[in-house]
Amino acid sequence: MMRPSRPLALTLGDPAGIGPQLTAQAWRSLRHSGEGTFFWLGDPRLIEVAVPVTRIETPEEADAVFAVSLPVLPVLCDAAVIPGQPHPRNAAATISSIRLAVEYVLAGRAGGVVTNPIAKHVLAAAGFPYPGHTEFLAALCDMPGEEIMMLVSPQLRVVPVTVHVSLRKALEMLTTDRIVSVAETANAALKRDFGILTPRLAIAGLNPHAGEQGLMGEEEITIIRPAIEKLRARGIDCLGPFPPDTMFSNTARPTYDVAICMYHDQALIPLKTLDMAHGVNVTLGLPLIRTSPDHGTAFDIAGPVTETCRADVSSLLAAIRLADGMSAYREGKKS
Amino acid sequence: MMRPSRPLALTLGDPAGIGPQLTAQAWRSLRHSGEGTFFWLGDPRLIEVAVPVTRIETPEEADAVFAVSLPVLPVLCDAAVIPGQPHPRNAAATISSIRLAVEYVLAGRAGGVVTNPIAKHVLAAAGFPYPGHTEFLAALCDMPGEEIMMLVSPQLRVVPVTVHVSLRKALEMLTTDRIVSVAETANAALKRDFGILTPRLAIAGLNPHAGEQGLMGEEEITIIRPAIEKLRARGIDCLGPFPPDTMFSNTARPTYDVAICMYHDQALIPLKTLDMAHGVNVTLGLPLIRTSPDHGTAFDIAGPVTETCRADVSSLLAAIRLADGMSAYREGKKS
Repeated sequence: MMRPSRPLALTLGDPAGIGPQLTAQAWRSLRHSGEGTFFWLGDPRLIEVAVPVTRIETPEEADAVFAVSLPVLPVLCDAAVIPGQPHPRNAAATISSIRLAVEYVLAGRAGGVVTNPIAKHVLAAAGFPYPGHTEFLAALCDMPGEEIMMLVSPQLRVVPVTVHVSLRKALEMLTTDRIVSVAETANAALKRDFGILTPRLAIAGLNPHAGEQGLMGEEEITIIRPAIEKLRARGIDCLGPFPPDTMFSNTARPTYDVAICMYHDQALIPLKTLDMAHGVNVTLGLPLIRTSPDHGTAFDIAGPVTETCRADVSSLLAAIRLADGMSAYREGKKS
Repeated sequence: MMRPSRPLALTLGDPAGIGPQLTAQAWRSLRHSGEGTFFWLGDPRLIEVAVPVTRIETPEEADAVFAVSLPVLPVLCDAAVIPGQPHPRNAAATISSIRLAVEYVLAGRAGGVVTNPIAKHVLAAAGFPYPGHTEFLAALCDMPGEEIMMLVSPQLRVVPVTVHVSLRKALEMLTTDRIVSVAETANAALKRDFGILTPRLAIAGLNPHAGEQGLMGEEEITIIRPAIEKLRARGIDCLGPFPPDTMFSNTARPTYDVAICMYHDQALIPLKTLDMAHGVNVTLGLPLIRTSPDHGTAFDIAGPVTETCRADVSSLLAAIRLADGMSAYREGKKS
């Protein structure tokens, strides 16, 4: 595979979380591997005690220094950073970092955004009006509501049709149109950014045994089957609705490229049950590539950046590698 | 461990399904192992071409012959049995076999019932008024509605608070009292039949992230936490409500003995994702021990009993071994 031409933009995240430690570890892991050149939009003072740092002014400088030092495009924290103790005055830096990363990607100067974890309650206290990263990114792209979440692990890709709402609300929100729209977005992303020529979609049922011909719920008949028919009419390779409990088994998973799930936990339970460490959160439906490790700020275990983080860097590394691969596919440098 | 004093009663199931083949395979696997002496309540003509059979008249005869021949307490099929082609005239034998097994167990002459798979639509066509085995067993025990399903695999035990109803209906049926009742039954069964002195119960949330303090659903606050408080007040070791997506991970599972789940797929997805082959369905809440393999009749792959079944006998073997172990604990022969 040829390398994508542009580096990835890695955000600051909450500076009091495990982001700085994981960033240093990720750079050490990747500096010689050639998979995932990135620059950090963060505060160089937080990290230069742990790894050699080069302050850069443009993303274009990242590639030349990456093998010998971590390229940092400075985004300075206003308050002193104490690991484990988030400070509301540093919310501005966290937010600026995300905003800058998106600007560089949308301008074609970075290949994708990889986000370090943020803490919703810290940002909310500072007046940040978004429930999380993904909604903020959609707003920055001027596409609110278009964002879709895909979770990727080595064993499984899942896309929930509804995400951060109660199960009761998820049932209300489930419509044929929503399933079709989410499945089409997933299908397009797998073709463009994952190199899958004809993605195979497995559509989950909603009810036990996928409703068993209406005995245990009608949604398979009234909502999900019509969505599958529409998708097929548009040339998308999809099967279902499958009984949710058996579709994630060892024998079933290899038969599809992505599972389209009806609610958050139907997607997240199998993914995290199989693999907690390597899950990557991918945002689809926006014009930019964005991945994120599938864990939080972990304030409880955040420590000085000179110490190896007790959190596992696997998920961040997987997020960087995946964004790098997606960027290469999108540039046509991988097929 | 000392052996339980009574053999297990294995039912006929649908004679045109994979039950007869699996029964022959199970006997071959267990005849010398001493784990799970059973007798089959079935038609000896179906199986004596494959394995040596001794026709018995009482359960008490099973133990003496088990090492050299399969003990069969005859329950004859009225119509010729063609593998893969269920016949409504054989429903009577299927039902008689279950009824007899329950009678022997309730009379203290068999240690537990292990059921071979039945096909609901075949029995329904013959006028059988129950949706499945479990409800029929509850009726035979004169305890309709008391039955509770536990699924057991080598990695996980789960008990869904609601079972074969739509997800919408499951939300309606979820009450504090129901959670408390199901959790108490599970707790008592783990103590009595699994040799766990102080079972640790993990109570699942209902909503994504267990509701995140009410942001994504209220049921954790209004229904589940009060149940946990009541259970603790009764001396039961239980924690939760846990975010459903992370509670089945490799690191979380060893911290509890059973997960009490709010709906069918919340329990069944992690269990079957981890292990499709070794799941055992255990009925709790009734006065008898009853286990069952976690698969159906598989008419599509049922063949002559002389041929090795393409279905995996693992789940039936696990069901027999588990019932045997439960019987030993209940008799006080294992601790």
